[in-house]
Amino acid sequence: METIFSKIVKGDIPSHKVYEDDNFLAFLDIAPLKKGHTLVIPKRTEDYLFDLDDSELAEMMIVSKKVAKAIKKVFPCEKVGVAVLGLEVPHAHIHLVPLESEQDINFANPKLQLSQEEMADIAAKLQAQV
Amino acid sequence: METIFSKIVKGDIPSHKVYEDDNFLAFLDIAPLKKGHTLVIPKRTEDYLFDLDDSELAEMMIVSKKVAKAIKKVFPCEKVGVAVLGLEVPHAHIHLVPLESEQDINFANPKLQLSQEEMADIAAKLQAQV
Repeated sequence: METIFSKIVKGDIPSHKVYEDDNFLAFLDIAPLKKGHTLVIPKRTEDYLFDLDDSELAEMMIVSKKVAKAIKKVFPCEKVGVAVLGLEVPHAHIHLVPLESEQDINFANPKLQLSQEEMADIAAKLQAQV
Repeated sequence: METIFSKIVKGDIPSHKVYEDDNFLAFLDIAPLKKGHTLVIPKRTEDYLFDLDDSELAEMMIVSKKVAKAIKKVFPCEKVGVAVLGLEVPHAHIHLVPLESEQDINFANPKLQLSQEEMADIAAKLQAQV
């Protein structure tokens, strides 16, 4: 099934890429809770995270760790938080958000509005650290 | 370092266990956002999730998948959500919460107050499905 994320994987919709390999892609959330808020997705469309095979799920988490380490270098924070909600886009995705407090990862918070230039700059800085 | 979770692992603090193997433990969150809200932890104390070795992190996620599948059977829901905040207890833990809406996993929400009997009943039902 086509999703907004499968279109990003194919390049039909542009994104600010942070990391890419054969099976996974990480790119900036278009409506970030914090600067550095990144999504990690499998290139293969699977709606529910826990329907991924064990090996895919394991690999996705190891990719998330790589990306999280880059986020923490570029945006110093207590920890990089993880959230998987999955109720909006039917394509499994892991949110990685730099945290100073638990409320930094409350999805009811207003989202940041960053210019394309700011997003490109953030993505380039993260890419350089992954 | 001793944490409330390492004391749970040792059995010095009681918990409502859902799953246990050599390296990981899953037990009910004592202040659940929803019935079925479960924590998965490594038995080895490591503060930050992304400081776990790749293989431990992968294994922890596969354990989380097992537990999430049990949660969804016992508490039918859209999806089981995942959150890792890690700012309160310095021992890596993955929250698994049955979701009908994204706000079900907002940690600012009031927590459920369940009796020990209810908690024991929920844990037994989950254990039977893992």
